[in-house]
Amino acid sequence: MDAATFRLLGHQLVDWIADYREQVETRSVMSMAKPGEVRARFPPTPPATGGHLAEALRTLERDLMPGITHWNHPSFFAYFPSNTSYASILADIVASGLGVQGMSWQTSPAATELEEVVMDWLRQMVGLSTAWTGVIHDTASTATLCALLCARERASSYAQNAKGLQSGEAPLVIYASDQAHSSVEKAALLAGLGRAHLRLLDSDDRHALRVDRLKSAIEADRGAGLRPCAVVATIGTTGTTAMDPLEDIAAVAKQHRLWLHVDAAMAGTAMVLPECRQMWEGVEAADSLVFNPHKWMGVGFDFSAYFVRDPEHLIRVMSTNPSYLRTAQDGEVKNFRDWHIQLGRRFRALKLWFFLMDVGVEGLQARIRRDLQNARWLADRVKDAKDWVLMAPVSLQTVCIRHVPDELQGDEEALTCHNLEIARRINESGKAYLTPSMLKGRQMLRVSIGAECTERRHVEAVWSELLSSVTHQH
Amino acid sequence: MDAATFRLLGHQLVDWIADYREQVETRSVMSMAKPGEVRARFPPTPPATGGHLAEALRTLERDLMPGITHWNHPSFFAYFPSNTSYASILADIVASGLGVQGMSWQTSPAATELEEVVMDWLRQMVGLSTAWTGVIHDTASTATLCALLCARERASSYAQNAKGLQSGEAPLVIYASDQAHSSVEKAALLAGLGRAHLRLLDSDDRHALRVDRLKSAIEADRGAGLRPCAVVATIGTTGTTAMDPLEDIAAVAKQHRLWLHVDAAMAGTAMVLPECRQMWEGVEAADSLVFNPHKWMGVGFDFSAYFVRDPEHLIRVMSTNPSYLRTAQDGEVKNFRDWHIQLGRRFRALKLWFFLMDVGVEGLQARIRRDLQNARWLADRVKDAKDWVLMAPVSLQTVCIRHVPDELQGDEEALTCHNLEIARRINESGKAYLTPSMLKGRQMLRVSIGAECTERRHVEAVWSELLSSVTHQH
Repeated sequence: MDAATFRLLGHQLVDWIADYREQVETRSVMSMAKPGEVRARFPPTPPATGGHLAEALRTLERDLMPGITHWNHPSFFAYFPSNTSYASILADIVASGLGVQGMSWQTSPAATELEEVVMDWLRQMVGLSTAWTGVIHDTASTATLCALLCARERASSYAQNAKGLQSGEAPLVIYASDQAHSSVEKAALLAGLGRAHLRLLDSDDRHALRVDRLKSAIEADRGAGLRPCAVVATIGTTGTTAMDPLEDIAAVAKQHRLWLHVDAAMAGTAMVLPECRQMWEGVEAADSLVFNPHKWMGVGFDFSAYFVRDPEHLIRVMSTNPSYLRTAQDGEVKNFRDWHIQLGRRFRALKLWFFLMDVGVEGLQARIRRDLQNARWLADRVKDAKDWVLMAPVSLQTVCIRHVPDELQGDEEALTCHNLEIARRINESGKAYLTPSMLKGRQMLRVSIGAECTERRHVEAVWSELLSSVTHQH
Repeated sequence: MDAATFRLLGHQLVDWIADYREQVETRSVMSMAKPGEVRARFPPTPPATGGHLAEALRTLERDLMPGITHWNHPSFFAYFPSNTSYASILADIVASGLGVQGMSWQTSPAATELEEVVMDWLRQMVGLSTAWTGVIHDTASTATLCALLCARERASSYAQNAKGLQSGEAPLVIYASDQAHSSVEKAALLAGLGRAHLRLLDSDDRHALRVDRLKSAIEADRGAGLRPCAVVATIGTTGTTAMDPLEDIAAVAKQHRLWLHVDAAMAGTAMVLPECRQMWEGVEAADSLVFNPHKWMGVGFDFSAYFVRDPEHLIRVMSTNPSYLRTAQDGEVKNFRDWHIQLGRRFRALKLWFFLMDVGVEGLQARIRRDLQNARWLADRVKDAKDWVLMAPVSLQTVCIRHVPDELQGDEEALTCHNLEIARRINESGKAYLTPSMLKGRQMLRVSIGAECTERRHVEAVWSELLSSVTHQH
């Protein structure tokens, strides 16, 4: 492709995206495609000859769009939001267009240094002290794996450089609540610690980790000759955005010299609001912290912010130093390849830079406050409505509810079917998309507010849908 | 930002990238920025108010570009190429613009199904049998970590679901050559196996793994009560693109029931040429295989292709199944979140689709052949030149050389300084960028050909630079 064709098609696609965003509200939120339907529209063998891209672009709407679930739709209430702001898209044009690697400082100094700048901006924005240093990771799952690996190595005096976990020494143990994200379990298993050494502790009736259970588990493990290694505190769980009591957990971690990792994947963004920071009081005592600007904030996926208090330790766990990666500046600069699992790195700092230049901290704060208010509005409606139940405190923007008609009271199986049916109806109507989920054996519906374009009227609309789905059903 | 502004700025940036690509040859390949120079151009605190993006874009050239090392420059001969074709950039506009998550089939069926389509195209293009199933990973480092984790779990009968590596059982051992990529060592350490259980075996004088050493190491380990677990065969090492003897290694792996992982990160792209496929004869006996379309091929970073023969095993090692991720279609579709470490996923399949629609398989083959010929041309010049030495067979597109003037013969220390000085002069001239590297204690210069826009004249030019850097120096 020559530059002229790139200009032509690039302009076309920018306009196509703008058109898409402007009319996304008219589309069904969840894709209605059947399994195999999209695949069948593509030939089974690759094109032998080129020159077909312009033609392919003309088929996007017909072949691809029926298989898209619209994460930037104002009635997207599923999972957690994954906002990709216009500014982020523009930044990705620059990142893709330059196509540089930020693995070492020398391989593009601007990629490393802009990352230092914007990660320090981010640190300030969420009220963390200067004791923290940030690095961009791809996802919280990877960052949490890094955190547990760092914990493992600190507790074992860098066993990776000797026999790894294969020394026959007393096993290391990891603690989290039973509401911790599945990535904590995955990380513990991948790190080689084993399910037998992962304690997913009971949570309280607000779905937060019970510190008494943490203490007794640690003591039991010590008594059994095991080595407590790390605790993961979640600030904003995936199920209900519950807040683990960080300050108390930090005290226990300190006493037992555990690594304290804070998973604030969703809630971190709320910390741009000073009034929310009591939610993670105690965070300064943690060893590592991850949150996802690619969720609620608006920095397009992928962009996880991983903060550590001891970068030297992170580097010691993650670095390799083959001769083909050495450069003249090593020692006086950061080589971010040594700050995570991957070697290659996209120029992702551009996304946060563009985003903040576009909205500013105050603009972001206003939007986050809007979403918190929308969630409280919905929670109030649920509280007032007959037969509807709030399943958990609404600490952020996710409202966990279910419908409990009189005749189904106490019949969990029937309540599960009933609420799954509500979710199915709404999702298949295309008018909104929400996530059915289980909370300690009870079926609920998660209404997670916070798509960038979700206004009060969209929350009002999903509430009407919920109400009428029930009327309709009975 | 409203849609109109997005259109305006998007068009501007598409043109800015086109301008950049059209005149990249006039820029210094390696950035001449000093440490801290780029950082100093940005304010220490984030912008309080928004609306500054258009203004920021006007500063890109002044503030950012001096810190860019140009990976898509025709005289980029460093590391391995990391080509980002125009078609890739266009695909990223669509991926970023849609901003969908492909973690589960339901979260955007098109993302999963287009990935199935293009990964099967890729399988056919490199001549793999239908026994392989592909999935997009971010980088080969992550894919290799997954491979070793899968090996660990197969050898230990899924220890992760019990005590992990902390059971005190006989340690598992990993084998690779001393020329294997640093990511193999990193993966072995992160997987908890320990440096004591990683055998980086001697390579032969073509820098390929010595199968006799592999056999004797396995036997010694068995004799010592250890459990041989996996061998990594590299097809195209990072140092010299050496080819491990895959067929022989596969026979040993089969005999000892080792997991066989093939790291063809660079060389995989060459397999689109039928005449290159003898290089990985034996690949069908492997358990896993990674190569990087984001290197030489032209699919913009990040896009690693990970192929496995037993997806069920991969899923068993990588999956978690929390209720908030369950969907109605589970069981009849692929949920690619269970095929790697991360949970969230960009819509990366678009990049390979756009790329192939644009160039076609034949167009790609022609470019790869061009690069192989350019490398052979340079190798021939080196062979004919007085005092210049080829350090390794030129099996692909990387030419490893050094200058050995008569007066420095046998003085390795002086030869190191001398060749580092050649690299420094060339890289700091801005006219070309190559990588100095050590090969078994000997300093060399890697000239890695294969940037998309590198023509014969650019290879001729870097050879002239090399020759004159020596004349100049003496």
